[in-house]
Parts: sequence; C-alpha cells; structure tokens
Amino acid sequence: MAGSSFGNIFKITTWGESHGKGIGVVVDGCPAGLSLSEEDIQVFLNRRKPGQSKYTTPRSEEDAVEILSGVFEGKTTGTPISMVVYNKTQRSGDYSEIAGYYRPGHADYTFDKKYGFRDYRGGGRSSGRETIGRVAAGAIASKLLSELGIEVVAYTKSIGDIEIDYDRFDISYRDKNPVAMPDETSAINAQDLLDTKMQEKDSVGGVVECVVNGMKTGVGEPVFEKLDANLAKAVMSIGAVKCVEIGAGFEVSKKSGSTNNDSFTSDDKGYVTKRTNNAGGILGGISDGDKIVLRAVFKPTPSIFREQETINKEYENINVQIKGRHDPIIVPRAVVVVESMTAITILDMLFISMTSTLRGIKKFFKE
Amino acid sequence: MAGSSFGNIFKITTWGESHGKGIGVVVDGCPAGLSLSEEDIQVFLNRRKPGQSKYTTPRSEEDAVEILSGVFEGKTTGTPISMVVYNKTQRSGDYSEIAGYYRPGHADYTFDKKYGFRDYRGGGRSSGRETIGRVAAGAIASKLLSELGIEVVAYTKSIGDIEIDYDRFDISYRDKNPVAMPDETSAINAQDLLDTKMQEKDSVGGVVECVVNGMKTGVGEPVFEKLDANLAKAVMSIGAVKCVEIGAGFEVSKKSGSTNNDSFTSDDKGYVTKRTNNAGGILGGISDGDKIVLRAVFKPTPSIFREQETINKEYENINVQIKGRHDPIIVPRAVVVVESMTAITILDMLFISMTSTLRGIKKFFKE
Amino acid sequence: MAGSSFGNIFKITTWGESHGKGIGVVVDGCPAGLSLSEEDIQVFLNRRKPGQSKYTTPRSEEDAVEILSGVFEGKTTGTPISMVVYNKTQRSGDYSEIAGYYRPGHADYTFDKKYGFRDYRGGGRSSGRETIGRVAAGAIASKLLSELGIEVVAYTKSIGDIEIDYDRFDISYRDKNPVAMPDETSAINAQDLLDTKMQEKDSVGGVVECVVNGMKTGVGEPVFEKLDANLAKAVMSIGAVKCVEIGAGFEVSKKSGSTNNDSFTSDDKGYVTKRTNNAGGILGGISDGDKIVLRAVFKPTPSIFREQETINKEYENINVQIKGRHDPIIVPRAVVVVESMTAITILDMLFISMTSTLRGIKKFFKE
Amino acid sequence: MAGSSFGNIFKITTWGESHGKGIGVVVDGCPAGLSLSEEDIQVFLNRRKPGQSKYTTPRSEEDAVEILSGVFEGKTTGTPISMVVYNKTQRSGDYSEIAGYYRPGHADYTFDKKYGFRDYRGGGRSSGRETIGRVAAGAIASKLLSELGIEVVAYTKSIGDIEIDYDRFDISYRDKNPVAMPDETSAINAQDLLDTKMQEKDSVGGVVECVVNGMKTGVGEPVFEKLDANLAKAVMSIGAVKCVEIGAGFEVSKKSGSTNNDSFTSDDKGYVTKRTNNAGGILGGISDGDKIVLRAVFKPTPSIFREQETINKEYENINVQIKGRHDPIIVPRAVVVVESMTAITILDMLFISMTSTLRGIKKFFKE
Repeated sequence: MAGSSFGNIFKITTWGESHGKGIGVVVDGCPAGLSLSEEDIQVFLNRRKPGQSKYTTPRSEEDAVEILSGVFEGKTTGTPISMVVYNKTQRSGDYSEIAGYYRPGHADYTFDKKYGFRDYRGGGRSSGRETIGRVAAGAIASKLLSELGIEVVAYTKSIGDIEIDYDRFDISYRDKNPVAMPDETSAINAQDLLDTKMQEKDSVGGVVECVVNGMKTGVGEPVFEKLDANLAKAVMSIGAVKCVEIGAGFEVSKKSGSTNNDSFTSDDKGYVTKRTNNAGGILGGISDGDKIVLRAVFKPTPSIFREQETINKEYENINVQIKGRHDPIIVPRAVVVVESMTAITILDMLFISMTSTLRGIKKFFKE
Repeated sequence: MAGSSFGNIFKITTWGESHGKGIGVVVDGCPAGLSLSEEDIQVFLNRRKPGQSKYTTPRSEEDAVEILSGVFEGKTTGTPISMVVYNKTQRSGDYSEIAGYYRPGHADYTFDKKYGFRDYRGGGRSSGRETIGRVAAGAIASKLLSELGIEVVAYTKSIGDIEIDYDRFDISYRDKNPVAMPDETSAINAQDLLDTKMQEKDSVGGVVECVVNGMKTGVGEPVFEKLDANLAKAVMSIGAVKCVEIGAGFEVSKKSGSTNNDSFTSDDKGYVTKRTNNAGGILGGISDGDKIVLRAVFKPTPSIFREQETINKEYENINVQIKGRHDPIIVPRAVVVVESMTAITILDMLFISMTSTLRGIKKFFKE
Repeated sequence: MAGSSFGNIFKITTWGESHGKGIGVVVDGCPAGLSLSEEDIQVFLNRRKPGQSKYTTPRSEEDAVEILSGVFEGKTTGTPISMVVYNKTQRSGDYSEIAGYYRPGHADYTFDKKYGFRDYRGGGRSSGRETIGRVAAGAIASKLLSELGIEVVAYTKSIGDIEIDYDRFDISYRDKNPVAMPDETSAINAQDLLDTKMQEKDSVGGVVECVVNGMKTGVGEPVFEKLDANLAKAVMSIGAVKCVEIGAGFEVSKKSGSTNNDSFTSDDKGYVTKRTNNAGGILGGISDGDKIVLRAVFKPTPSIFREQETINKEYENINVQIKGRHDPIIVPRAVVVVESMTAITILDMLFISMTSTLRGIKKFFKE
Repeated sequence: MAGSSFGNIFKITTWGESHGKGIGVVVDGCPAGLSLSEEDIQVFLNRRKPGQSKYTTPRSEEDAVEILSGVFEGKTTGTPISMVVYNKTQRSGDYSEIAGYYRPGHADYTFDKKYGFRDYRGGGRSSGRETIGRVAAGAIASKLLSELGIEVVAYTKSIGDIEIDYDRFDISYRDKNPVAMPDETSAINAQDLLDTKMQEKDSVGGVVECVVNGMKTGVGEPVFEKLDANLAKAVMSIGAVKCVEIGAGFEVSKKSGSTNNDSFTSDDKGYVTKRTNNAGGILGGISDGDKIVLRAVFKPTPSIFREQETINKEYENINVQIKGRHDPIIVPRAVVVVESMTAITILDMLFISMTSTLRGIKKFFKE
C-alpha cells in the first residue's frame, strides 16, 4: 500500500527526497473558507529549519514554501492544497562515499533490501527533510484547530538525563533557546550536555512532550480508530521515535488502580473535571475533554563523527567515519514535527466524530 | 469513520458487546488454501478466557467459537471468514447500578458524551471482551505467518515492580503459570504481589513484551505506513495500553549514538546481522530481518473494590464501591491480544510489501 | 485488498455463502440514537426473498434477520450493528454436478482461477444471496436518510423490450406486481414476456431505475470521490450489472450541448431549479439539489434450462443442462438491492460532505 | 473524505486548478526499478494537449511535465513520484464575467453551494485540465502494465450518431486524425458533423471505448472491489461521463440468457477461451483472461456559444452567451484519460490480486 498518505477526512500526502528537486505535500480535505497564506506555513517551517544554532547542521536551506493550489483570493477553496519547498542543496557529490556502505542506525540497509537500490544522497526519502511536508500540513491543521479553540503545543521535555522542572515551566521560553525547552535552567544544562557530546563526537536522545488544550469531548472511534491509537501511529511514524506515551505512559505499569484512576469531580456549576490526568485526556480511546498529553521518545542522532563498525554493499565488515553535517540531537527540531502530527491527527479525528449521533447530524442539516 | 476495522489487505472487522448476544469478527482478505478449523481458533481464545485462575474474573464463559463462512472442506476459500462467540452471561441486572454513574478509569463518561447514552452492561463495547474478535483473527494471522516461517510470541515482562530476568527466560514456562511469565521465580513473586493487591482491594499494571522471529527483510512502507507506526497503532488500540515501545524503547532517550547504534556485521558466508538490536528489528520503518521486539504497557485494572470518588449522571459528586467481578491485573490475559494484534499487523504489512519492486512483481506473474 | 467492505464513514462489511451457515453484514459507523428493530430490516429483506412469485426460485428461505449487536434499548449505540440471516437450505447434494464444470455466464471459472478452488454450492460467495447483507445494511441507511428528509426509491424500468410508460407511472403499484414495475400495463406485458421465456427455457435482462428525492445540495467530493463515481461503483458491484447510467445516461452521446444542458431557473422566491434534469441531479460530481436519477442495467439470468456448451474442470468441451431452481429474470428482486446500494452511498457521501466548509464546522462545534 | 486520491496499492493524488500555478499528481506505491523519464509521461500528455486541431481550444499550453521526486538515476525508487505541469496561461481577466453567474451544465453552481465560493477562473478545479494529473499517472501505470504484457488501448467509438465500423477498424489510424477514431471513413464523417455543430454554435457527445489486451486471469475482489465496479468508478469520475458500460453493456437488458451467455471452449492444447465476450472479460467481478472491454459515454461540451438561459449569483434569471475558448466535443481529448484511468485501476487491482492464494504467497517469499 502506498505509504505516503496520512489521515482520512483531512488527508496529507508527502513526497520528496533530501537531495532531490524538492520536498512537498498535498493537503486534501481542508475545508473551504480558511484564510491561508504562505507566511502561515513559513512560521512553522522555520521552527525546523537547519542552521539556527550550533546544534543543527549548517546546511544552507531557506526552506521557503510555495503554495501551488487550493487557495484563491486568500482563502482555502476546499480543493487540494499543494505546497513545495525546493531544495537549494542538491550536490550529490557529498554522498558518493556513503553510497557504498550501510550506516548503522540508518535506513540505508533496509531501503536497499526492500527496493533493490536507493537514492543514497543524504538518506533520500528517509532523511529528516521528509518532515517538511508534515510540518507544512501541520501548520494548516493547527490553524484550523485554533479556529475551533483548540491549541496544540509541544516542547522538549528531556535531553539525555536533563529533564525540565514543571515548577519552572514557561512555554514562552521555548522559542528563545536552541533546545526548545520551556525551562531556562534545564535548557542551559542541556546545552552543556550537548557541548560535551559534540566534543566526544557523539549524540544523545531525548523526549518531546505535546499537550492539546481546549480539546472537545467525544473524539476518537472505538475499537481500532481510538484517538490514542491514531496518535501513536502519527508520532511513531516520525523517524527516530522508538516509544510513544499517553498520559502517565510507562509509569502506569508500576502503579496501582487506586493511584492511577483519575476521579471525576464536578463543581457547583456542573462542570466536570478529573482530579488527576493519568489518562492523558483519553478514556476508552475517546477524548474526555481534559488536556491531551503525549510524549515521543527520540533516539540519538545515528550519524556520529566517531569511527563505527559496519558492512559495505559487498557485505564485508568495514570501519567507517561518517563525514558531513549532522546534529548531535534530533529533539529540538522535531518538536514542531510532533506538534504537526498531533494537530493533523486531532483534526482528522475531530471531523470524523461529527457523525457520532443522529441528533448532531439532524441539527447540522436543518436549514 | 467507522472504527471497528483494522488492516488493509488482511482486514478484520469486529463487533459485539460484553453482555449482548455475542462477540464476533469478520476476517477479510485471508488467502485461499489455508487449512483452518475451529480448534485452531479455540486454542488462541482459551488463552484469554476468564475463570482460569484466582486472578481472573470467574465469569462463566466457554468462549466457544463458531466459524460461519469462508471455510469449505477444511480450507479457507479467500472469501470473508465470519466467526462468532455467543455470550452465555447476558444478565443486565448486575449492571443496573453502574448505569447511574461514571466509573473512574473507564470509558463510561466518554461513551455517554460521544453517543448520548451507552450500553452500560459490563462496559458494553468498551469491555475487554471486545478482544475476542482480535484474538480469533490473530489465530488466523499467526497460522498464516507460521506457514511463512514467521513466529510471533508474547509474554508478560513485568507486573508492577516484578520484572522477568532474561537469564532465567524459558518460554515453555509461560503457559504453566497464571501470570504468563516465562521465568518461574518472577512468576512466583508476581503472584505474591497480586495476592497483596487483592487483599488491599487494589490492582496493578504491567508490561507485555512481544517478539517476532523469522521476520522477512523489507517489510514496512515509508513514510506513514512504517512497520513500527502500524504496530504502535495496533497495540495502542488495545484497551488499557498507555505506552508502546519498539526495541530499546524509552531508554533511547538517555543513550548516546555510539551506544544506541546497532553495528552491522556479516559472517564469512555473507549473512548479515546486527551486533545489538536496540532498533527492535526496524530501521526507517522497514524490517531489517532481525527479531522484532515491542512492548505494550498496561495500566492497572480500573475496576477496584476500594471506595472511590466520582460523579453520577446528574454530575453530582458521589462515592462508589464497584461490585461485580474483576481481575486485579489485566496483563496475563492480554498477552495473547498483543500477540494477535502484532501478528495481524505483520501479516498485512508483509502482503503490502510484495509490490516493492518491479522485479518481484514480474517474477510473480511469470507463468 | 479485502473486498467485502463498502463505504467510509458509514461502512458495511458482508460475509457468507449461498449454502454456508448464513449470510451477514456488519454495519459500522451508524450514528447513535436511531430507533431500530429487526422488523425495520425484515421489511427490506422480504422484498428480495425468494418464493414470492412464479418468476422466482421456490427455494424455501424465511430470510429472517437477527440483530446481534449495536442496538440497546431499541436504539443504535454508535457501535457496529452485526446482522445475520441463517440459511435454511444447506444441502450441498444439489450441487455435486456443477462442481465438475464451469457454468457459462457464472463466476465458477474465475473463482477457480483466482483461488485455486471454490465453494461450488449454489455459487458460494458469488451467489445472489450475497445481496442479503447489502439489503440489511440498506434498510438502516434508508431509515437514516428518511430522518433527514431524503427518500430513495427504485423500481423496474424495463424487462427485455417492455418499458414502463411515465404517463402511467404509479409507484404504489410497484409492490403489487411480481415484476416491481410502477405501471400496470407494462407489468402485465412483462409477465407475458417472462411466461414466454420460461417456456423457451430461457431468461431475459432488464433495467432498474433509482431516484433520490429530497437530496441535499453539495454532496460529493471532487475529483475521484464524485457522487456519481461512487454510485457507479456501488451499483456496478451488484452481480449481473453491466452498465450504469446517471441522468440522461447513454443518450447524452447523441445529444447536442444546446439540448443536453439543463438551464437553471429561479422562481420569485429565489428557489433554484433546473428546467430539465439530464444531469440526473449531479454536476461536477456534486449534487445540485435536484432528484438524483440512475439506472442499473442487468444481464439475463445466466442459469437457463436450455442445453449449453461449456468446459469441465479438465478443460474438456462438454454440453450441459443446468438443473435446479432459477429465476427467468434478475431484475424484480434486484430492485431493493439497487435501492440499498444507492442509500448506503448517498448516506456515506452526505456524512463526508459535513466538513466542506469551515463555517459549517464551526457552527457544529459551537456549544 | 479527501476526494483527490485514487487507488490502494498504486495510489495517485492529484491537485491543481485550471488557472492556478499548475496541475500535478503524486504517484505513490509505484514499485522500484522501472525505467522512467519525463519523455515517457510527455507522450501521454501530448495526446490530451490543447491546440492540436480546429476542434480543440487554441489555449497555448505546452503541458511540459517535470518529475520532482521518486526517480533516481533513471529508475523509480519505490517512493512517491511527484509530477507537475506549470500553467502558462493564468490570466484571470477572461473569467471575470462568468464569476457572476452559473453556466448550465457546469459545476459552478454546485461548487458554490458546497464550498461557499469558488475559484471561477476556467472552472478552477472542475476544469478538464484536472485530467493532466490522471494522464501523467496513467503513463506510469501503462508502462508498468506493458512490462507485464498487458496493453490498454482506448479510442473514439462514436461522435453523435457517427459510429466506427469494426470491419474498417485500424488502431494505427487513431493518432492520425483529430477525432481519435480507428476508422478513416467514420473519422471523416465525424469531422463533418463537428463542422456543422461549430457552425451552429453547438456541441455534441460521444463514446470512448477501451480494451485491455493480455489481461491476467483472477484479478478483482468480490464483493465490493470487483474489477468492473472499480473500473466503473474510475471512468465515471472523469468529468462529463454519464454512463459506463462493460462488455455488451446496455444491450444485455434486451438479450436472452441463451444469447448473452458466453460459452467456454478449449482447444486441443487445453487453452480456454469464450466463444463470445458479452461479459467484457469479467465474470463475477473477476477477470477471466479475455479482453476487457468498457465504454465511457461523454456528454456534449456544456460550453456553447449559443445564448442560454440561466441564473446569476443573486438567483435572478438571465440570458448568457459564454465567451472564450471551448471544444465542440470532449471525446477525442478524453481518449487518453479513459485509457489512463483504466490502466491505473487494472494495475492496482492486479497488485491486490497477488495475495489471493497461500500457494502464491509462499512461492513469492521462498528465497
């Protein structure tokens, strides 16, 4: 099955390779009437753009997006929105060496086994540059959600052992530091860790947390199209993610029912909340109106400058030292990718939930 | 979107409620020519059947499966295989009480908010009994995979703080103890923990681990239909799962690239392996031929005998003590569910991978 | 890909063979809150039941439907509705002969070529009995549509050369004659034709016309999910249909633009209509608010008593004379099948159209 | 649901408007290893390009295609192939007038009703230019099919009352006349008819016939994903098509079983054929190995120079005379579109059929 599409009602299809002509996405199923400009998209893309700090590759890319269809007189028309970012850097010379062997932790080997050969330039389709399509689409999904009062916010929760302290949480700080942490002290510590890793010619992993505020109740379809199931797929489809958590996540395995259960409570106006949110805003696969909380766990950048053992295309054991440009950490630039995939999923499932009751449908169609 | 189907080429559709007439599944896209009997299915269902130990509900259900279509003269015909397990226990009387309030940690509240009302008998569609359909389908997927030399095996990895020791790992022991652990010592300790929890009128969470042996290389579709992305969805769609891990899972966030990267190596016959398997057998969303390793993290059973705070349907704060039958742990009976969802996903993605290369397609169609 | 499912939001999955244990359907994505009883379904099924006139097989089947899930206290719950009709007649003895050869005009040969063998009893899965699942689901779709003021009506338009005269059109007469024609004179003539065909041990084809009244405007998704494209698929998927027409259908090939174009016109209250309806209520794949008109063209029953040439399983040329029970005409019993497939398609596309505009979505979610 | 994608394993997603920046398509699921150049695509696009005869709009468009991804070193990589044709003519000035009213026979009214407003320039997304994406994708599907020995050929069967004579059938003549007829005499007569229509400021409809040679047996999935059902959807999704026929098509309604049934016969080498092909190569929704034959019936071009009645955006009755450029006949340029949609469908269903039997799957995976 073609694997480059995601979503049902709000559906995205991405294309493009790291060093091909460009990277793009077609967003289909976007409702008509949303004000949309290239600037709306660019703001999102700039958050994942390379070259913004010493922790990111200096590859010189503007990542300037162009909208090719689906917008007329400043508004979406309901027809597919095609967006493209043309690649500036297409030199394949840089990559002649890695064409001959399989980098550990990369998809070189599996692409060759699957397809018989591969576009080896910068990882081709398996490059992190592929996420440009996700983020461009995520910008639209986020804008639509904000029209409905729903806000998706992601940030770096941890880098290696350095974790944010929620007592110091300040989301406005996220965009003011190169590691996208909403906590100044942790951000400084994390940068120290990264400096060390760079000196050691090594890399490190980390965790992105994503929160959805203003969520509607009743979104998610039992049994297989549960909201958390779709979020898990959305987030696990991002390269380098090896674990997805909802709410209390892994910790629930060590908890008791009495401490894990979130008690419902209502105030004197009958407004319902939960005393805790171990569920992460999802019960039985359906949103409960509380904040949705999820985490994506990223592995360390597989490209490191240190010498590594591997095999070449002739299946001979060799030692390699990967050249070129790579970040010592994936997480900071991945924050907006997690945010985008979450927004796309939430929006699509929200649309799907519109037919849950006959009463809602009748109200909709009553002139 | 209808949420009760899973898969593309090999597709299952489940139906049924805890205390309705029955639970069933339609398996569509099963290739013709597989020997299949009700006994093949029953073996799987028996692994999740209630009443097998003091840690499971004594609800008296045979869970006897009946095949209604798709099998002729002992072989699958290629057309849909409909299977049903009729419920023995349909007394709705037991549940008249919980109809009036929302149990913490359950989907009562979200079903009511989504659909306007709910089948409150035993959780209705959100009951764990829903997994009967998954397991019946999983039995078929597993049998098909074994015809191709692929074996899917799941077991309990941990219950609360009690974790198996891989030095004592013995898979044959899994089916000889009520907690499905492949390690005798840990199984005994886990039972002690469960006894304590039962005395405390409480429950506990745990982790199921699943391994796929004999996996083919090249399965999984970049970008959104990655093998790990689909496994994450498959597993997260199981009720009570709050975290999914692939390979080293959460631990990768604290690792360095130099220790997380799995070096490729080849023996003198050119047979390729990896020195480690932090990747869990998947690189860039595509199987690398190594064991696939994943973990599903389950929350504690939300139904506990202890008094809890909650709200009733009138949104008044109340205290409740849930009566009835419930297990102090979900994990042991969920092992076969994780195994089933993994098998279904692997099989479906395996089928999809058959069109990866023109060479493979031409070979297939050459008479 | 599994082929037994149809629809997206409102999705049906059918199963069962002519002489297996039963025939069934799972209806998923039905909104909660619809009053639904087995009687609602039975009324539809009775319209396609055998044994109702001398023109239908005397096979003794009650076709009594049972609802197994998805309805609680008389209302749909939003979860899958599983329905089954158990087969009374399961004698495979009748069919031992046809197991050995390929009936002309039937799917015997193609099933064997595709699957390696087949369930030969009464055509197995390729039997007209398969449509029971479609009709049971269609009953639900029709009931939902009627809640929204939309009515789907099908009838026999022609049998062989006998065509209804719209000047004598009386829909109430449709259910009072064995050929389902809404015109008494034509119905009598058609029965004469059928009597002749039966004497000649032959069969004849015909046309079913289907009209959708009260249709909403704006339903259908450009480019590939056009309303007419989905209706064409829905109707062509019915066994024995070889042609689908929308509006003026085949006749448009001979018309001029000046006579084929339907002029828009508005009355003094600004109510818009078209002076003609060659478009059949669909322009650019989107409903225009006018009546939707389509026709399904059915081939003659392939089973005839006359001797025919064919081959046996050993690919030897033989002459055969098919025994058993068969109708001289497919059309009258297919009327409710066309109606059902149309209703399912219209409903599904109607649901999908709910997200066409941001304005509509915002209105829906405004509390 | 997003409506701009078609196919499952081999999936296309199109985008673009008549007078936007361009028109494009993403082809996903194309197997790796196919030699592919822009020239392969251009040959197909040139067959639908405007300005090639006096019967087509003189709009000056090169329709030069650019491949943006998915091809590396001359071969497809298995990843999405993005193709774009930039529009030369983007003058929206021409269309200021039609923005204010609804052209009869066009989608202006339905787009406005569905989306609240529309891109009125040249029909926007509902323009025939949308088919560029289909044809570019069809070129790839056709090339893949030819690698498997399958050839898809379409041609004009009739224009108005002028129909080809199969006794004079010469497919090589198809590309040598402006009406794409494979019969010189009929082509001349058809041109006379068109000249008359142009003088009368009118247009005319016609029929495209499409044949698939070298078809594999066993392609098509019962019950809803029948090969003919999917072909019907594929073809009916083309703008202006109002009827789809398979094999004998509409004529079967007037036939008897004895004349409509195609007798199987085998030669002395056991090679199976049918004496006739009223089935059009499809029995029970599955290909029987014979030629597949289908017809798409096109309405006359709705844009005519003659004065017509309609309404404006204020729903006032007005008379209009449409200016600009339009063809007196849609059919000749639509031939390659029908061919493309057929090829895409056949290829996708062929891929899907690969998992019909366990035996075939085991053979595929045996190293």
